[in-house]
Amino acid sequence: MRLAELGAALSLPLEGDGEVALTGLASLEDAGPNELAFVTGAKFQAAFAKSRAGAFLLPAKFESLGRSCLRSPAPYADFARAVDLFYPRPAPAPGVHPSAVVAADAVLGAGVSIGACAVIGAGARIGARTRIHPHVTVYPGAEIGEDAEIHSGAHIRENVRIGKRVVVNNGAVIGAPGFGFTSRADGTRLRIPHVCGVEIGDDCEIGANTTIDASHPGHPRRGHPDVRTRLGVDVILDNGVQIAHGCDIGDHSTICAHSALAGSTVVGRYVFMGGMTASAGHLTIGDLSMVGAMAAPSSDIAPGSQVLGVPAVDRRLWGKIVAAKKRLPDLLHRVRRLEKRLGVDGED
Amino acid sequence: MRLAELGAALSLPLEGDGEVALTGLASLEDAGPNELAFVTGAKFQAAFAKSRAGAFLLPAKFESLGRSCLRSPAPYADFARAVDLFYPRPAPAPGVHPSAVVAADAVLGAGVSIGACAVIGAGARIGARTRIHPHVTVYPGAEIGEDAEIHSGAHIRENVRIGKRVVVNNGAVIGAPGFGFTSRADGTRLRIPHVCGVEIGDDCEIGANTTIDASHPGHPRRGHPDVRTRLGVDVILDNGVQIAHGCDIGDHSTICAHSALAGSTVVGRYVFMGGMTASAGHLTIGDLSMVGAMAAPSSDIAPGSQVLGVPAVDRRLWGKIVAAKKRLPDLLHRVRRLEKRLGVDGED
Amino acid sequence: MRLAELGAALSLPLEGDGEVALTGLASLEDAGPNELAFVTGAKFQAAFAKSRAGAFLLPAKFESLGRSCLRSPAPYADFARAVDLFYPRPAPAPGVHPSAVVAADAVLGAGVSIGACAVIGAGARIGARTRIHPHVTVYPGAEIGEDAEIHSGAHIRENVRIGKRVVVNNGAVIGAPGFGFTSRADGTRLRIPHVCGVEIGDDCEIGANTTIDASHPGHPRRGHPDVRTRLGVDVILDNGVQIAHGCDIGDHSTICAHSALAGSTVVGRYVFMGGMTASAGHLTIGDLSMVGAMAAPSSDIAPGSQVLGVPAVDRRLWGKIVAAKKRLPDLLHRVRRLEKRLGVDGED
Repeated sequence: MRLAELGAALSLPLEGDGEVALTGLASLEDAGPNELAFVTGAKFQAAFAKSRAGAFLLPAKFESLGRSCLRSPAPYADFARAVDLFYPRPAPAPGVHPSAVVAADAVLGAGVSIGACAVIGAGARIGARTRIHPHVTVYPGAEIGEDAEIHSGAHIRENVRIGKRVVVNNGAVIGAPGFGFTSRADGTRLRIPHVCGVEIGDDCEIGANTTIDASHPGHPRRGHPDVRTRLGVDVILDNGVQIAHGCDIGDHSTICAHSALAGSTVVGRYVFMGGMTASAGHLTIGDLSMVGAMAAPSSDIAPGSQVLGVPAVDRRLWGKIVAAKKRLPDLLHRVRRLEKRLGVDGED
Repeated sequence: MRLAELGAALSLPLEGDGEVALTGLASLEDAGPNELAFVTGAKFQAAFAKSRAGAFLLPAKFESLGRSCLRSPAPYADFARAVDLFYPRPAPAPGVHPSAVVAADAVLGAGVSIGACAVIGAGARIGARTRIHPHVTVYPGAEIGEDAEIHSGAHIRENVRIGKRVVVNNGAVIGAPGFGFTSRADGTRLRIPHVCGVEIGDDCEIGANTTIDASHPGHPRRGHPDVRTRLGVDVILDNGVQIAHGCDIGDHSTICAHSALAGSTVVGRYVFMGGMTASAGHLTIGDLSMVGAMAAPSSDIAPGSQVLGVPAVDRRLWGKIVAAKKRLPDLLHRVRRLEKRLGVDGED
Repeated sequence: MRLAELGAALSLPLEGDGEVALTGLASLEDAGPNELAFVTGAKFQAAFAKSRAGAFLLPAKFESLGRSCLRSPAPYADFARAVDLFYPRPAPAPGVHPSAVVAADAVLGAGVSIGACAVIGAGARIGARTRIHPHVTVYPGAEIGEDAEIHSGAHIRENVRIGKRVVVNNGAVIGAPGFGFTSRADGTRLRIPHVCGVEIGDDCEIGANTTIDASHPGHPRRGHPDVRTRLGVDVILDNGVQIAHGCDIGDHSTICAHSALAGSTVVGRYVFMGGMTASAGHLTIGDLSMVGAMAAPSSDIAPGSQVLGVPAVDRRLWGKIVAAKKRLPDLLHRVRRLEKRLGVDGED
């Protein structure tokens, strides 16, 4: 593809030689004379100057040094769009594969693709153009919106409602029963039936092998019409995340791999939680807050906070604690020396 | 359903108006005049007084304030029983789905349900009335007891024996080979064949995407007739738990999400391990002990202990350490000040 | 089997009575008179002296006390080989199960076994003698080498290339899209298409429910011909491990259960990472280094290092910090006492 063609396809203005032939995309460091690279800001100036790329996606005010480029208001996003042009991914063909098992009363929208050996239960509803890959199980009564994509080995349990354009990656389990038990009068354990399911808003993405548990009627509603475990719109969960019963995750929030939220955690909007984070149950993590990797909030987090550590504290305090911790063995010696100097018996 | 009918169905004594019409269940905070709520003890007195619920499940000595209720020796358990009455869940129909693949010599008990595309290997045994959901794989020779339920996408490997009434949730993997390797004389790695499998006692529940590894003959037996990785009866594992080869988990113990036990850990009876806990290998965690969330025992835990932290210490000590840690940056300043006062050269 | 026969089968020299009848294998502690046990070194001298085993695998210079044994240069490895002799595991029969769905243009090598309900996508390639178990999905275009074994419920996505003799355990997901997003000019989120896939070298083993994410063209190449997420040869990943996009794991390295590497982590050769470890992104973990259980490197780790803690520090320093941490509450009191003695106002 010529650079001018790419610019036309992406509707971006060209500077320099539109005839540069492009065969692929690469990072600034790796790109060769037939590859497109991108620059997001001033900190890449040196790498840009050294780059062997044939053409670039550059932000508006970035000095081009006379090199051929497309000007972009969001170079990384346009790089992503260019990936789709250079490496088109064939979509699964619409239709129901003969080996799939679709209940007679399941409702399939127009243009749906149901892959080999997928199983769609009684009364389930699949929205138009949604792609169900092989080995997906949709339990009876579950609902999936339009233009969604459910990858192989995902399991959508009863009482789950999934929005439009949601991507569920392989092995994710949505709507398994929450971890709730109680004791009978005789002391034996009884499982609470988690009949309230899960609701996932539009444009969410659920990572591979992530689990989102169903809720039960004893969980609080918090102003929603029902008590399902809930993800808002545009919530992105990485791989291996665990969302317990009754959690409620606000719009546009992001949770990185291997994190685990205990029951009834309320996560606000535009929250970012790093990898392997955890929350104690029944907490509120405020809008726009950032929970650093491996941090574990044990009490409510105020909106806009940035926290780190176990239990989580303000990230500046955490930085000081981490620095001080390394000096702790030395500190013991120093205190012992002061005690000796003062004749105090300090060692216990 | 009228409150009086519900009382009869649950065999609980009625107080007040038996004609209250109930359409569902909810928490004390959310319940409206046609919903049933429950109270487990005195700490809910204020919420009870404010509740708009039409009726209640109340413990024996809790003051009813003249409101209609059923008296219950275990209100949360009776709430769970009521959930089953209000939200009945249709059980999968008995029989073998035509798309399932059942080996000719597999043994299926009476009333078994084998779902679409399930695969039952040669010589496997499935107990009476057990429900196998779609996309379950039962490897050759594995055994599952009566009245069990194996959800879609669970994988039961060779040499696994599962007890009665066990629930295995979606994506759980039982009996994959343990993480055991050794070096050949030439230094290359050799996998130890993990041929001893896993034994799971009656009434256990295994969470979604949980993994329980098989054992091998070199693991110690600890008084059991064989060396399988073992769960006792009524063991409950949450989602994403990892049980390594040769572990032995005692009756009635509970392990929360994302925890991981290293090889040959012995967990006693009635142990509670919180979320994201970990144990070093070959430890014993004593009966009735409690390992707090994110704690990591690195040596044996005495029966009845309550531990927290990495590595785990008594929870009272941990509380003091956590409080002191926050003061650590300040402590460094204080010691420096003392050193200055005494003319000691402390900064290194 | 007689001990002499076993020695012949394993090509190991016999000492003592070759007529000992063996029916199985067990640990030193558990083995009875018809069982074989093994000893790897001097630290097992006392257990060996007490062992009731009928015969032993002993290293060259270990004193046999006159007991019947086979001499072995690698007793644990020979124990593993003996396990295969005593507990032979039937291999899946070659051929394609009638319920499997294999695309017309998929290429299957000689002697391949494709299990029930397995789905092999268009243009996929499966090497000779490889065993695909039931419910495996191989996406279009993926490639698996010779003599590999892919267990039930594993999902091999597009653009994944797996080497020879690789074992992928149940529920593993290889090649799901990495966790990469950016913002469009209007602030909405856009997913980066992860079209570069994953490459897994020969002789790797991938644990159950482990996830390895695909890379995209913007990731650095680091001297490799492409930008796939990469595992070298003989890399062993335990259960529930997460490898993010663009990681590169060197030959012969080992990562234990529940660990998670953030994006573009470079792990050297012969690295050992314990359970529940984590790395921040874009780090290099040097050859031959050891990252202890639950440790989290937050900066590069030099070759040959041994680190522990969050964030990870040298393991000797960590040991001192852990010891000092337990004394931290007491240290606060001691400093307070010194302050009082000197008339300094220390409590804030």
